[in-house]
Amino acid sequence: MKRRLLLVSNSTLHGGGYLQHCQQQIQDFFGKNVKRILFVPYALHDRDAYTKTARDKFKTLGYEVDSVHETPDPVDAVRKAEGIFIGGGNTFRLLKALYDSKLVTEIRKRVLEDGIPYMGSSAGTNVSTISINTTNDMPIVYPPTFAAIGLVPFNINPHFLDADPNSKHMGETREQRIVQYHEELDTPCVLGLREGSMLLVEGNKATLLGSTKARLFQRGKQTTEHDPGSDLSFLLTEAQ
Amino acid sequence: MKRRLLLVSNSTLHGGGYLQHCQQQIQDFFGKNVKRILFVPYALHDRDAYTKTARDKFKTLGYEVDSVHETPDPVDAVRKAEGIFIGGGNTFRLLKALYDSKLVTEIRKRVLEDGIPYMGSSAGTNVSTISINTTNDMPIVYPPTFAAIGLVPFNINPHFLDADPNSKHMGETREQRIVQYHEELDTPCVLGLREGSMLLVEGNKATLLGSTKARLFQRGKQTTEHDPGSDLSFLLTEAQ
Ligand SMILES: [Ca+2]
Ligand SMILES: [Ca+2]
Repeated sequence: MKRRLLLVSNSTLHGGGYLQHCQQQIQDFFGKNVKRILFVPYALHDRDAYTKTARDKFKTLGYEVDSVHETPDPVDAVRKAEGIFIGGGNTFRLLKALYDSKLVTEIRKRVLEDGIPYMGSSAGTNVSTISINTTNDMPIVYPPTFAAIGLVPFNINPHFLDADPNSKHMGETREQRIVQYHEELDTPCVLGLREGSMLLVEGNKATLLGSTKARLFQRGKQTTEHDPGSDLSFLLTEAQ
Repeated sequence: MKRRLLLVSNSTLHGGGYLQHCQQQIQDFFGKNVKRILFVPYALHDRDAYTKTARDKFKTLGYEVDSVHETPDPVDAVRKAEGIFIGGGNTFRLLKALYDSKLVTEIRKRVLEDGIPYMGSSAGTNVSTISINTTNDMPIVYPPTFAAIGLVPFNINPHFLDADPNSKHMGETREQRIVQYHEELDTPCVLGLREGSMLLVEGNKATLLGSTKARLFQRGKQTTEHDPGSDLSFLLTEAQ
Protein backbone atom coordinates (compact mmCIF):
# COMPACT_ATOMS: atom_id res chain seq x y z
CA MET A 1 0.00 0.00 0.00
CA LYS A 2 1.37 3.40 -1.04
CA ARG A 3 -0.34 5.32 1.78
CA ARG A 4 1.57 8.32 3.18
CA LEU A 5 -0.04 10.30 6.03
CA LEU A 6 1.02 12.95 8.51
CA LEU A 7 -1.69 13.21 11.17
CA VAL A 8 -1.09 16.11 13.52
CA SER A 9 -2.90 16.58 16.85
CA ASN A 10 -3.06 20.38 16.80
CA SER A 11 -2.24 23.22 14.37
CA THR A 12 -0.82 25.57 16.96
CA LEU A 13 1.09 24.75 20.12
CA HIS A 14 0.84 27.13 23.08
CA GLY A 15 3.32 29.99 22.61
CA GLY A 16 4.13 29.13 18.98
CA GLY A 17 2.87 30.14 15.54
CA TYR A 18 0.57 28.32 13.13
CA LEU A 19 2.07 24.88 12.29
CA GLN A 20 5.39 26.02 13.77
CA HIS A 21 5.89 23.00 16.04
CA CYS A 22 5.62 20.56 13.12
CA GLN A 23 7.21 22.51 10.26
CA GLN A 24 10.26 20.26 10.04
CA GLN A 25 8.04 17.19 9.86
CA ILE A 26 5.91 18.88 7.16
CA GLN A 27 8.97 19.51 4.99
CA ASP A 28 10.29 15.99 5.54
CA PHE A 29 6.83 14.64 4.68
CA PHE A 30 6.02 16.52 1.47
CA GLY A 31 9.67 16.62 0.42
CA LYS A 32 11.09 18.37 -2.61
CA ASN A 33 9.04 16.72 -5.36
CA VAL A 34 5.70 18.15 -4.23
CA LYS A 35 5.38 21.79 -5.35
CA ARG A 36 1.67 22.51 -4.81
CA ILE A 37 -0.56 21.36 -1.96
CA LEU A 38 -4.36 21.24 -2.16
CA PHE A 39 -5.82 22.79 1.01
CA VAL A 40 -9.28 21.97 2.37
CA PRO A 41 -10.54 24.87 4.57
CA TYR A 42 -14.05 23.46 5.21
CA ALA A 43 -13.68 23.17 9.01
CA LEU A 44 -13.78 26.94 9.50
CA HIS A 45 -16.50 29.36 8.47
CA ASP A 46 -14.22 31.97 6.86
CA ARG A 47 -12.59 29.91 4.13
CA ASP A 48 -10.80 32.85 2.51
CA ALA A 49 -9.10 33.94 5.73
CA TYR A 50 -8.22 30.35 6.58
CA THR A 51 -6.69 29.77 3.15
CA LYS A 52 -4.56 32.89 3.52
CA THR A 53 -3.21 31.61 6.86
CA ALA A 54 -2.32 28.23 5.36
CA ARG A 55 -0.96 29.72 2.13
CA ASP A 56 1.32 32.16 3.97
CA LYS A 57 2.72 29.43 6.20
CA PHE A 58 3.30 26.86 3.45
CA LYS A 59 4.98 29.54 1.31
CA THR A 60 7.67 29.87 3.99
CA LEU A 61 8.19 26.11 3.77
CA GLY A 62 8.55 26.17 -0.02
CA TYR A 63 5.07 25.05 -1.15
CA GLU A 64 2.29 26.77 -3.11
CA VAL A 65 -1.24 26.28 -1.78
CA ASP A 66 -4.39 25.88 -3.88
CA SER A 67 -7.61 25.88 -1.90
CA VAL A 68 -10.36 23.49 -2.89
CA HIS A 69 -12.95 26.23 -2.23
CA GLU A 70 -11.37 28.47 -4.87
CA THR A 71 -11.73 25.89 -7.65
CA PRO A 72 -14.90 25.45 -9.73
CA ASP A 73 -14.68 21.65 -9.46
CA PRO A 74 -13.41 20.33 -6.10
CA VAL A 75 -13.51 16.67 -7.21
CA ASP A 76 -11.35 17.47 -10.22
CA ALA A 77 -8.98 19.46 -7.99
CA VAL A 78 -8.52 16.35 -5.82
CA ARG A 79 -7.96 14.23 -8.94
CA LYS A 80 -5.10 16.51 -9.98
CA ALA A 81 -3.60 17.17 -6.53
CA GLU A 82 0.06 16.37 -5.76
CA GLY A 83 -0.66 16.44 -2.02
CA ILE A 84 -3.55 17.30 0.32
CA PHE A 85 -3.75 19.19 3.62
CA ILE A 86 -7.00 19.31 5.59
CA GLY A 87 -6.92 21.87 8.39
CA GLY A 88 -8.65 21.92 11.78
CA GLY A 89 -11.77 23.66 13.04
CA ASN A 90 -15.14 21.97 13.56
CA THR A 91 -15.09 18.28 12.62
CA PHE A 92 -18.86 18.01 11.99
CA ARG A 93 -18.84 21.00 9.65
CA LEU A 94 -15.78 19.59 7.88
CA LEU A 95 -17.16 16.08 7.37
CA LYS A 96 -20.54 17.37 6.17
CA ALA A 97 -18.82 19.66 3.63
CA LEU A 98 -16.60 16.79 2.43
CA TYR A 99 -19.72 14.69 1.77
CA ASP A 100 -21.63 17.63 0.24
CA SER A 101 -18.71 18.16 -2.17
CA LYS A 102 -18.39 14.41 -2.87
CA LEU A 103 -14.75 14.42 -1.81
CA VAL A 104 -14.67 11.54 0.69
CA THR A 105 -14.37 8.72 -1.84
CA GLU A 106 -12.12 10.72 -4.15
CA ILE A 107 -9.62 11.58 -1.41
CA ARG A 108 -9.55 7.96 -0.21
CA LYS A 109 -8.83 6.78 -3.72
CA ARG A 110 -6.07 9.32 -4.36
CA VAL A 111 -4.32 8.57 -1.08
CA LEU A 112 -4.69 4.78 -0.89
CA GLU A 113 -4.43 3.97 -4.61
CA ASP A 114 -2.31 6.76 -6.07
CA GLY A 115 -0.19 7.37 -2.98
CA ILE A 116 -0.40 11.17 -2.82
CA PRO A 117 0.64 12.49 0.61
CA TYR A 118 -2.18 13.47 3.03
CA MET A 119 -1.63 15.78 5.96
CA GLY A 120 -4.36 16.45 8.51
CA SER A 121 -4.43 18.61 11.59
CA SER A 122 -6.96 18.29 14.43
CA ALA A 123 -10.34 17.98 12.61
CA GLY A 124 -8.37 17.11 9.47
CA THR A 125 -6.86 14.24 11.43
CA ASN A 126 -10.27 13.09 12.73
CA VAL A 127 -11.73 12.83 9.21
CA SER A 128 -8.77 10.77 7.99
CA THR A 129 -9.64 7.91 10.39
CA ILE A 130 -12.47 5.37 10.41
CA SER A 131 -15.00 7.77 11.91
CA ILE A 132 -15.43 11.05 13.74
CA ASN A 133 -16.82 9.27 16.82
CA THR A 134 -13.92 10.52 18.93
CA THR A 135 -13.78 14.19 17.96
CA ASN A 136 -13.87 16.79 20.76
CA ASP A 137 -15.96 19.20 18.72
CA MET A 138 -19.49 20.44 19.23
CA PRO A 139 -22.02 18.85 16.82
CA ILE A 140 -23.05 22.16 15.21
CA VAL A 141 -24.26 20.52 11.98
CA TYR A 142 -25.54 17.00 11.15
CA PRO A 143 -23.37 15.04 8.70
CA PRO A 144 -24.95 12.18 6.70
CA THR A 145 -22.86 9.66 8.70
CA PHE A 146 -20.02 9.68 11.23
CA ALA A 147 -18.01 7.35 8.94
CA ALA A 148 -15.01 9.25 7.61
CA ILE A 149 -12.34 8.89 4.90
CA GLY A 150 -10.92 5.75 6.48
CA LEU A 151 -7.23 6.06 5.64
CA VAL A 152 -6.38 4.12 8.82
CA PRO A 153 -8.41 1.36 10.55
CA PHE A 154 -8.65 3.05 13.98
CA ASN A 155 -9.75 6.34 15.54
CA ILE A 156 -7.75 9.27 16.86
CA ASN A 157 -8.56 11.72 19.63
CA PRO A 158 -6.62 14.89 18.81
CA HIS A 159 -5.80 17.48 21.51
CA PHE A 160 -5.82 14.58 23.99
CA LEU A 161 -5.92 16.04 27.47
CA ASP A 162 -5.04 14.42 30.78
CA ALA A 163 -7.50 14.96 33.62
CA ASP A 164 -6.66 17.93 35.86
CA PRO A 165 -6.68 16.59 39.46
CA ASN A 166 -7.43 20.10 40.78
CA SER A 167 -10.43 20.73 38.54
CA LYS A 168 -13.82 21.34 40.17
CA HIS A 169 -15.59 20.92 36.85
CA MET A 170 -17.86 17.87 36.79
CA GLY A 171 -18.15 17.25 33.04
CA GLU A 172 -16.60 13.97 31.87
CA THR A 173 -12.80 13.84 31.55
CA ARG A 174 -11.40 13.01 28.12
CA GLU A 175 -10.50 9.51 29.31
CA GLN A 176 -14.07 8.94 30.60
CA ARG A 177 -15.44 9.99 27.21
CA ILE A 178 -13.26 7.51 25.33
CA VAL A 179 -14.12 4.77 27.82
CA GLN A 180 -17.82 5.48 27.12
CA TYR A 181 -17.07 5.04 23.40
CA HIS A 182 -15.58 1.63 24.13
CA GLU A 183 -18.71 0.60 26.06
CA GLU A 184 -20.31 0.43 22.61
CA LEU A 185 -19.89 -2.81 20.65
CA ASP A 186 -17.29 -3.30 17.90
CA THR A 187 -15.48 -0.02 18.49
CA PRO A 188 -11.88 0.28 17.22
CA CYS A 189 -8.76 1.51 19.03
CA VAL A 190 -8.51 5.19 19.87
CA LEU A 191 -5.09 6.83 19.79
CA GLY A 192 -5.08 9.88 22.08
CA LEU A 193 -2.62 12.33 20.49
CA ARG A 194 -1.62 14.99 23.01
CA GLU A 195 -0.91 18.48 21.68
CA GLY A 196 2.60 18.45 20.23
CA SER A 197 2.43 14.92 18.87
CA MET A 198 1.66 13.52 15.42
CA LEU A 199 1.51 10.18 13.66
CA LEU A 200 3.52 9.48 10.51
CA VAL A 201 2.20 6.62 8.37
CA GLU A 202 4.23 5.30 5.44
CA GLY A 203 2.64 2.25 3.86
CA ASN A 204 2.17 -0.20 6.71
CA LYS A 205 4.56 1.54 9.10
CA ALA A 206 3.32 4.03 11.70
CA THR A 207 5.62 6.13 13.87
CA LEU A 208 4.81 8.57 16.65
CA LEU A 209 6.57 11.92 16.14
CA GLY A 210 6.69 15.17 18.09
CA SER A 211 7.33 16.15 21.66
CA THR A 212 4.62 14.41 23.69
CA LYS A 213 3.54 10.87 24.49
CA ALA A 214 0.39 9.29 23.08
CA ARG A 215 -2.19 7.29 25.03
CA LEU A 216 -3.77 4.26 23.38
CA PHE A 217 -7.25 2.99 24.30
CA GLN A 218 -8.29 -0.48 23.19
CA ARG A 219 -11.71 -1.93 23.94
CA GLY A 220 -11.44 -4.49 26.74
CA LYS A 221 -7.68 -4.03 27.17
CA GLN A 222 -5.35 -2.04 29.39
CA THR A 223 -4.67 1.52 28.29
CA THR A 224 -1.03 2.11 27.29
CA GLU A 225 1.38 5.04 26.93
CA HIS A 226 3.76 5.44 23.97
CA ASP A 227 6.84 7.66 23.71
CA PRO A 228 7.75 9.84 20.74
CA GLY A 229 9.60 7.68 18.24
CA SER A 230 7.52 4.58 19.05
CA ASP A 231 6.64 2.20 16.26
CA LEU A 232 2.83 1.95 16.23
CA SER A 233 2.56 -0.13 13.05
CA PHE A 234 0.44 -2.73 14.85
CA LEU A 235 -2.42 -0.19 14.75
CA LEU A 236 -2.58 -0.55 10.98
CA THR A 237 -3.58 -4.20 11.18
CA GLU A 238 -7.32 -4.40 10.52
CA ALA A 239 -7.79 -6.95 13.31
CA GLN A 240 -7.00 -4.32 15.96
CA MET B 1 -49.60 25.79 27.79
CA LYS B 2 -49.33 23.44 30.75
CA ARG B 3 -45.58 22.83 30.35
CA ARG B 4 -43.60 22.35 33.58
CA LEU B 5 -39.82 21.76 33.30
CA LEU B 6 -36.83 21.70 35.63
CA LEU B 7 -33.69 21.75 33.48
CA VAL B 8 -30.56 21.24 35.55
CA SER B 9 -27.03 21.88 34.28
CA ASN B 10 -25.30 19.09 36.20
CA SER B 11 -26.27 16.16 38.43
CA THR B 12 -23.43 16.55 40.89
CA LEU B 13 -21.73 19.71 42.05
CA HIS B 14 -18.08 19.53 43.14
CA GLY B 15 -17.88 18.39 46.76
CA GLY B 16 -21.56 17.39 46.96
CA GLY B 17 -23.63 14.24 46.48
CA TYR B 18 -25.80 13.17 43.56
CA LEU B 19 -28.52 15.83 42.96
CA GLN B 20 -27.72 17.33 46.35
CA HIS B 21 -27.33 20.92 45.14
CA CYS B 22 -30.82 20.93 43.61
CA GLN B 23 -32.79 18.73 45.99
CA GLN B 24 -34.91 21.59 47.35
CA GLN B 25 -35.82 22.66 43.82
CA ILE B 26 -36.68 19.03 42.95
CA GLN B 27 -39.11 18.79 45.86
CA ASP B 28 -40.65 22.18 45.06
CA PHE B 29 -40.98 21.10 41.43
CA PHE B 30 -42.56 17.64 41.76
CA GLY B 31 -44.50 18.69 44.89
CA LYS B 32 -46.67 16.44 47.03
CA ASN B 33 -49.11 15.17 44.41
CA VAL B 34 -46.53 13.26 42.39
CA LYS B 35 -45.70 9.94 44.09
CA ARG B 36 -43.85 8.05 41.36
CA ILE B 37 -41.32 9.37 38.87
CA LEU B 38 -40.44 7.61 35.62
CA PHE B 39 -36.65 7.57 35.22
CA VAL B 40 -34.84 7.32 31.86
CA PRO B 41 -31.31 5.90 32.34
CA TYR B 42 -30.42 5.65 28.64
CA ALA B 43 -27.45 8.08 28.79
CA LEU B 44 -25.28 5.63 30.75
CA HIS B 45 -24.24 2.11 29.78
CA ASP B 46 -25.07 0.43 33.11
CA ARG B 47 -28.78 1.17 33.37
CA ASP B 48 -29.32 -0.97 36.48
CA ALA B 49 -26.62 0.78 38.50
CA TYR B 50 -27.80 4.18 37.29
CA THR B 51 -31.39 3.41 38.26
CA LYS B 52 -30.28 2.38 41.75
CA THR B 53 -28.46 5.71 42.18
CA ALA B 54 -31.52 7.70 41.10
CA ARG B 55 -33.95 5.52 43.05
CA ASP B 56 -31.95 5.81 46.28
CA LYS B 57 -31.73 9.60 45.98
CA PHE B 58 -35.39 10.18 45.09
CA LYS B 59 -36.46 7.90 47.95
CA THR B 60 -34.84 10.33 50.40
CA LEU B 61 -36.90 13.11 48.79
CA GLY B 62 -40.17 11.18 49.13
CA TYR B 63 -40.57 9.77 45.60
CA GLU B 64 -40.64 6.24 44.19
CA VAL B 65 -38.72 5.68 40.96
CA ASP B 66 -39.74 3.40 38.10
CA SER B 67 -37.14 3.01 35.39
CA VAL B 68 -38.27 2.91 31.78
CA HIS B 69 -35.70 0.16 31.11
CA GLU B 70 -37.35 -2.14 33.63
CA THR B 71 -40.76 -2.01 31.94
CA PRO B 72 -41.80 -4.27 29.04
CA ASP B 73 -43.37 -1.34 27.17
CA PRO B 74 -41.51 2.00 27.50
CA VAL B 75 -44.09 3.94 25.44
CA ASP B 76 -46.87 2.71 27.71
CA ALA B 77 -44.80 3.63 30.77
CA VAL B 78 -44.53 7.21 29.47
CA ARG B 79 -48.29 7.26 28.81
CA LYS B 80 -48.95 6.39 32.46
CA ALA B 81 -46.20 8.47 34.06
CA GLU B 82 -46.99 11.12 36.69
CA GLY B 83 -43.59 12.77 36.13
CA ILE B 84 -40.39 12.13 34.16
CA PHE B 85 -36.71 12.47 35.00
CA ILE B 86 -34.04 11.99 32.32
CA GLY B 87 -30.53 11.74 33.79
CA GLY B 88 -27.17 12.75 32.36
CA GLY B 89 -24.40 10.79 30.67
CA ASN B 90 -23.75 10.73 26.92
CA THR B 91 -26.24 12.84 24.95
CA PHE B 92 -25.78 10.97 21.64
CA ARG B 93 -26.39 7.60 23.27
CA LEU B 94 -29.41 9.03 25.10
CA LEU B 95 -31.03 10.60 22.04
CA LYS B 96 -30.47 7.50 19.91
CA ALA B 97 -32.07 5.29 22.58
CA LEU B 98 -35.04 7.68 22.90
CA TYR B 99 -35.64 7.37 19.14
CA ASP B 100 -35.01 3.61 19.13
CA SER B 101 -37.65 3.25 21.87
CA LYS B 102 -40.06 5.65 20.11
CA LEU B 103 -40.21 7.88 23.17
CA VAL B 104 -39.46 11.31 21.69
CA THR B 105 -42.96 12.07 20.41
CA GLU B 106 -44.64 10.44 23.39
CA ILE B 107 -42.68 12.45 25.95
CA ARG B 108 -43.33 15.68 24.04
CA LYS B 109 -47.05 14.93 24.03
CA ARG B 110 -47.24 14.05 27.72
CA VAL B 111 -45.32 17.17 28.78
CA LEU B 112 -46.80 19.76 26.42
CA GLU B 113 -50.36 18.45 26.21
CA ASP B 114 -50.94 16.65 29.49
CA GLY B 115 -48.69 18.86 31.61
CA ILE B 116 -46.75 16.16 33.48
CA PRO B 117 -43.58 17.58 35.06
CA TYR B 118 -40.28 16.91 33.23
CA MET B 119 -36.92 17.12 34.95
CA GLY B 120 -33.67 16.79 33.01
CA SER B 121 -30.07 16.91 34.10
CA SER B 122 -27.10 17.51 31.79
CA ALA B 123 -27.76 15.22 28.77
CA GLY B 124 -31.39 15.02 29.98
CA THR B 125 -31.49 18.81 29.69
CA ASN B 126 -29.91 18.75 26.19
CA VAL B 127 -32.56 16.36 24.84
CA SER B 128 -35.40 18.51 26.20
CA THR B 129 -34.44 21.43 23.92
CA ILE B 130 -34.76 21.94 20.15
CA SER B 131 -31.66 19.90 19.34
CA ILE B 132 -28.49 18.40 20.76
CA ASN B 133 -26.32 20.69 18.61
CA THR B 134 -24.81 22.27 21.73
CA THR B 135 -24.00 19.22 23.83
CA ASN B 136 -20.43 18.85 25.16
CA ASP B 137 -20.43 15.09 24.71
CA MET B 138 -18.41 12.89 22.42
CA PRO B 139 -20.41 11.54 19.43
CA ILE B 140 -19.96 7.87 20.36
CA VAL B 141 -23.07 6.73 18.45
CA TYR B 142 -24.99 8.19 15.48
CA PRO B 143 -28.58 9.22 16.24
CA PRO B 144 -31.12 9.44 13.38
CA THR B 145 -31.20 13.25 13.76
CA PHE B 146 -29.88 15.90 16.16
CA ALA B 147 -33.45 17.23 16.59
CA ALA B 148 -34.59 16.53 20.14
CA ILE B 149 -37.80 16.53 22.19
CA GLY B 150 -38.33 20.26 21.68
CA LEU B 151 -39.97 21.25 24.96
CA VAL B 152 -38.44 24.74 24.62
CA PRO B 153 -37.64 26.70 21.41
CA PHE B 154 -33.94 27.26 22.11
CA ASN B 155 -30.80 25.28 22.97
CA ILE B 156 -28.93 24.84 26.24
CA ASN B 157 -25.25 24.25 26.88
CA PRO B 158 -25.05 22.44 30.24
CA HIS B 159 -21.84 22.45 32.32
CA PHE B 160 -21.09 25.83 30.71
CA LEU B 161 -17.45 26.66 31.42
CA ASP B 162 -15.68 30.02 31.29
CA ALA B 163 -12.33 30.04 29.50
CA ASP B 164 -9.33 29.55 31.79
CA PRO B 165 -6.91 32.42 31.06
CA ASN B 166 -3.99 30.32 32.33
CA SER B 167 -4.69 27.29 30.15
CA LYS B 168 -2.08 26.20 27.64
CA HIS B 169 -4.53 23.87 25.91
CA MET B 170 -5.28 24.96 22.35
CA GLY B 171 -8.65 23.24 21.79
CA GLU B 172 -11.59 25.63 21.33
CA THR B 173 -13.02 27.29 24.45
CA ARG B 174 -16.69 26.65 25.17
CA GLU B 175 -17.55 30.16 24.03
CA GLN B 176 -15.69 29.65 20.73
CA ARG B 177 -17.66 26.45 20.15
CA ILE B 178 -21.01 28.17 20.64
CA VAL B 179 -19.91 31.07 18.43
CA GLN B 180 -19.09 28.49 15.71
CA TYR B 181 -22.64 27.13 16.10
CA HIS B 182 -24.01 30.61 15.49
CA GLU B 183 -21.94 30.95 12.31
CA GLU B 184 -24.45 28.46 10.88
CA LEU B 185 -27.72 29.89 9.47
CA ASP B 186 -31.00 29.93 11.41
CA THR B 187 -29.54 28.77 14.69
CA PRO B 188 -31.51 29.50 17.89
CA CYS B 189 -30.35 31.03 21.18
CA VAL B 190 -28.04 29.00 23.39
CA LEU B 191 -28.37 29.35 27.15
CA GLY B 192 -25.06 28.46 28.81
CA LEU B 193 -25.98 26.99 32.20
CA ARG B 194 -22.95 26.93 34.47
CA GLU B 195 -22.67 24.07 36.96
CA GLY B 196 -24.92 24.92 39.91
CA SER B 197 -27.64 26.58 37.84
CA MET B 198 -30.96 25.35 36.45
CA LEU B 199 -33.91 26.69 34.52
CA LEU B 200 -37.47 26.39 35.85
CA VAL B 201 -40.20 26.65 33.19
CA GLU B 202 -43.85 26.92 34.17
CA GLY B 203 -46.10 27.49 31.19
CA ASN B 204 -44.69 30.56 29.45
CA LYS B 205 -42.60 31.70 32.42
CA ALA B 206 -38.90 30.79 32.72
CA THR B 207 -36.79 31.54 35.78
CA LEU B 208 -33.10 30.94 36.41
CA LEU B 209 -32.52 29.12 39.71
CA GLY B 210 -29.43 27.92 41.56
CA SER B 211 -26.17 29.46 42.64
CA THR B 212 -24.44 30.55 39.40
CA LYS B 213 -25.11 33.01 36.59
CA ALA B 214 -26.07 31.92 33.08
CA ARG B 215 -24.59 33.20 29.81
CA LEU B 216 -26.90 33.73 26.86
CA PHE B 217 -25.69 33.54 23.25
CA GLN B 218 -27.91 34.91 20.49
CA ARG B 219 -26.94 34.80 16.84
CA GLY B 220 -25.83 38.24 15.67
CA LYS B 221 -26.37 39.85 19.09
CA GLN B 222 -24.26 40.72 22.10
CA THR B 223 -23.78 37.89 24.60
CA THR B 224 -25.42 38.61 27.98
CA GLU B 225 -25.07 37.45 31.61
CA HIS B 226 -28.07 36.64 33.83
CA ASP B 227 -28.17 36.35 37.62
CA PRO B 228 -29.93 33.60 39.56
CA GLY B 229 -33.59 34.62 39.98
CA SER B 230 -33.70 36.30 36.53
CA ASP B 231 -36.89 36.08 34.51
CA LEU B 232 -35.90 34.50 31.16
CA SER B 233 -39.44 34.10 29.81
CA PHE B 234 -38.48 35.95 26.62
CA LEU B 235 -36.58 32.80 25.60
CA LEU B 236 -39.87 30.94 25.28
CA THR B 237 -41.08 33.16 22.44
CA GLU B 238 -40.60 31.25 19.19
CA ALA B 239 -39.25 34.35 17.43
CA GLN B 240 -36.11 34.29 19.57
CA1 LIG C 1 -11.88 21.54 16.75
CA1 LIG D 1 -22.23 14.25 29.42
